[in-house]
Amino acid sequence: MTPFKFEIVHQSTKSRARVGRIHTPHGIIDTPNFVAVGTNGTLKALDNEMVSSIGLQLMFCNTYHLLLQPGPEVIEKGGGIHRFINRNMPIITDSGGFQVFSLAYGGVADELKSKGMKKHGGSVLKITDDGVHFRSYRDGQLIKLTPESSIAAQKAMGADIIIPFDELPPYHIGADALKRSLDRTHAWEKRSLEAHLKCPNNQAMYGVIHGGVDDTLREKSCEFLTNLPFDGFAIGGSMGKTKEEMVTMLSNLLPKLPVEAPNHLLGIADLSSLEQCVPLGIDTFDSSYPTKAARHGTLLTQKEGNLKITSGKHQGAFIPIEEGCTCYTCQNYTRAYIHHLFKAKELTAMTLASIHNLHFMVELMNRYRSEIIKNCL
Amino acid sequence: MTPFKFEIVHQSTKSRARVGRIHTPHGIIDTPNFVAVGTNGTLKALDNEMVSSIGLQLMFCNTYHLLLQPGPEVIEKGGGIHRFINRNMPIITDSGGFQVFSLAYGGVADELKSKGMKKHGGSVLKITDDGVHFRSYRDGQLIKLTPESSIAAQKAMGADIIIPFDELPPYHIGADALKRSLDRTHAWEKRSLEAHLKCPNNQAMYGVIHGGVDDTLREKSCEFLTNLPFDGFAIGGSMGKTKEEMVTMLSNLLPKLPVEAPNHLLGIADLSSLEQCVPLGIDTFDSSYPTKAARHGTLLTQKEGNLKITSGKHQGAFIPIEEGCTCYTCQNYTRAYIHHLFKAKELTAMTLASIHNLHFMVELMNRYRSEIIKNCL
Repeated sequence: MTPFKFEIVHQSTKSRARVGRIHTPHGIIDTPNFVAVGTNGTLKALDNEMVSSIGLQLMFCNTYHLLLQPGPEVIEKGGGIHRFINRNMPIITDSGGFQVFSLAYGGVADELKSKGMKKHGGSVLKITDDGVHFRSYRDGQLIKLTPESSIAAQKAMGADIIIPFDELPPYHIGADALKRSLDRTHAWEKRSLEAHLKCPNNQAMYGVIHGGVDDTLREKSCEFLTNLPFDGFAIGGSMGKTKEEMVTMLSNLLPKLPVEAPNHLLGIADLSSLEQCVPLGIDTFDSSYPTKAARHGTLLTQKEGNLKITSGKHQGAFIPIEEGCTCYTCQNYTRAYIHHLFKAKELTAMTLASIHNLHFMVELMNRYRSEIIKNCL
Repeated sequence: MTPFKFEIVHQSTKSRARVGRIHTPHGIIDTPNFVAVGTNGTLKALDNEMVSSIGLQLMFCNTYHLLLQPGPEVIEKGGGIHRFINRNMPIITDSGGFQVFSLAYGGVADELKSKGMKKHGGSVLKITDDGVHFRSYRDGQLIKLTPESSIAAQKAMGADIIIPFDELPPYHIGADALKRSLDRTHAWEKRSLEAHLKCPNNQAMYGVIHGGVDDTLREKSCEFLTNLPFDGFAIGGSMGKTKEEMVTMLSNLLPKLPVEAPNHLLGIADLSSLEQCVPLGIDTFDSSYPTKAARHGTLLTQKEGNLKITSGKHQGAFIPIEEGCTCYTCQNYTRAYIHHLFKAKELTAMTLASIHNLHFMVELMNRYRSEIIKNCL
C-alpha cells in the first residue's frame, strides 16, 4: 500500500493556488479538488460504483452517523469502510465532533435565526475536558465521545485520512469562552494524535485549525497544531457570518500553514467560495451543496449557471442539461424528461440530477487545475 | 420497423403454458414474461438505461398519469415515449380507465375494507356513455376521458402496445349493474379500436376482457371482443377476492381466447400468481410488486424466498443478497451494506434493492420458459 504523501506539482505564479497530488493507500487525489459528502457511506440517491465512475477522487464520510449506524465494529468486521461500502478510492472521515455539537447548537444559520437551541437543544448532555456525552438521535442511547474513542472508531473504519476530535463552539460566544474552547480543542486534538500514533497504520491525520473569526486565535491554533506531526491541516470552526468574513480569515490564515502539507476547508464548496478560495491555496473542499442542490432541482451548468429544472420553461426542452456535457445524465436524458421526473416526484430525478452536478464539480476542478498550471489563476 | 407479430415457439405438452415471441417495432418480448411498471415513464428509483441493462423486455406506462404530467403533447413533441424516456425496447400503455375508476372507487382491497369511497370519492364527477369526467389529482383540473381521447393520447405517445378505454366496475356491484358496465365497456372498446384503426400505425391494440368473476359474462366478453380485430387480449376487471377465485376464473377463460393471439394479465405478477397462472397459458404479467417490495426492504431470492433485509440478522452478513446472483447489486454490495442503507434511510437502498428484484424476475421468467420448452411445466 502506498503510504500517504503530498507532492506539489505546480505553484501558480499569480496567486497562492497550487496543483498537487495527495497519494493515499487507495489512490491519488489531484488538488485542488472537490470532496463529495457521503454521510452514511453513500452519496444520497447514488451508489458507490456510479460515484467512482464519475471520477470523484475523495469521499467524505461522517463518523458521528456511522458510529450510530451501523457502528464501527460492523464496518471493521466487513473489512473496513472501503470494502464495506464498495469504494476502492480514497475516503476521509471526520471525528464526529462537528455533528455532536452542530446537532446540539444548530448550525451557524440556525443560530443566526436563533432557532438552534429550540430544535436540537438537549442532545448534548455534558461536555467535560474528557469528552462529550450525548444521546443518539436514532434511539436515545447514551453515548460518550472522547478523542480516544473517536480515533478508535476512525481506525476501525480505516479511512485514508482521519480527523482529530474537536469542539465546535457556537458562533455567538464570548471572547473568553472561545479561548477556553480553543484550549480544550487543542488538548483534544493532541490526545487524538497520540492515540493515532500509538497504533500507526497507513492512515493520515489532519489537524483542525480553530479560532473562529478571531485572527489572533487562528494564528495561535496554527502555531500549536503545526508543531505537532499532523500529515495535513483542515480548517474548521466558525467561518463567520458572511463570505467576506471567511475570505478575510482564510487570507490571513493560509500563509501561516506549512506549504508542504495539504490543507482542507471543512464543509464549504459552493461555487463562489471555490472561486475565492482556490487562489488562497486551499487544496480540498468538501460540501454536500452539489448533491443537495441537485435533489432540489438546481442543476449546475457552465453556460447558464444554476439552472432550476423544475421551471416551466424546461417542460419542452428536448436538449441535455448542458450541451456537450459527457455525464451519464446528459448522454441519456433531456431537460424535458428530468423536468417531468421532478414534477412527477420520482426518485430517479434526484439520481440523474446528482450525477450531473457531481460530474460538473469534477470538470470544474479539472479546469481550476489547468488554469493554475498555466499560471492564469 | 418490424410490425407487431406473435409466434408460438413451443406449446407445453403438460399444460396450456407456451413459450412465445412477441415482435414489436422496438424489439422482441419473450413470453411468458414479467412486465415492469413504470407509471410515470420511469421505474421508481431506477433510470431507463439501467432498466434496459437488466433485460426487462416490456415496460408498462400509465396513460392516466402521463396525461396529467407531462401530457401526451409534450411526449409527442419529444419524439414519442421511447425517445422521451430513453428506452429503446418495447413499451405498453394502458387506457387511463383503470386509474380513473380505481382512484374513484379505490381498489378491491380498499373496497373490501370499505374505505374506497371515503378516501377517493369525488374525483370522478360523471360517467356517461360517452366517457368519464374527472378532476386531476394534481391540480383539480377538469378532464374528460373518452375512448377517442384515450386512443389519441396513446397514439401521441406511441407505445408498441396500447389498450382500449374500459370501465372498471367496483367489486361490490349487482349482477345487473355489472352487465350494464360490461355492455358499456364493450361499446367503449369497439370505439377505441375504430379510433385506432382510423389512423393505422405500427401500434398493436389488446382488447380487455371483462366480466368480473362471473363466468357467463367473461365468456360473453370473450365472444364479443375476439370477434373484433384486436392484436391480443388483456384480462382486466375484478379478479375476485381470493387467488382461488382468480385461478378458477382464468382456468375457464383462457381456453376461450384465441390460441394464436398473445394475452396479458393486468396488474398481477406476484410469485404465487405466476406459479399458478403460467401453466394456464398467460403470456405476459405486469405488476409493481417486485419494485414496491424492494422499496420496503423485501428482497426476492431463490434459496431463501422473500428476504427481509431490514432484519437485524443481516447487519453483519457480508455476503451478496443471493450467492451466485449476477445482478449489479449482488456483484457490488453485501447484505450488510444494503441493510445499513435501509436503516440509514438512504434512497440508494431502494435503487439497489429494486435492481436485484427486477433481475430476479427476469431470471425467474427465463426459468419458466426453459421449463416449458422441456415440457416440465
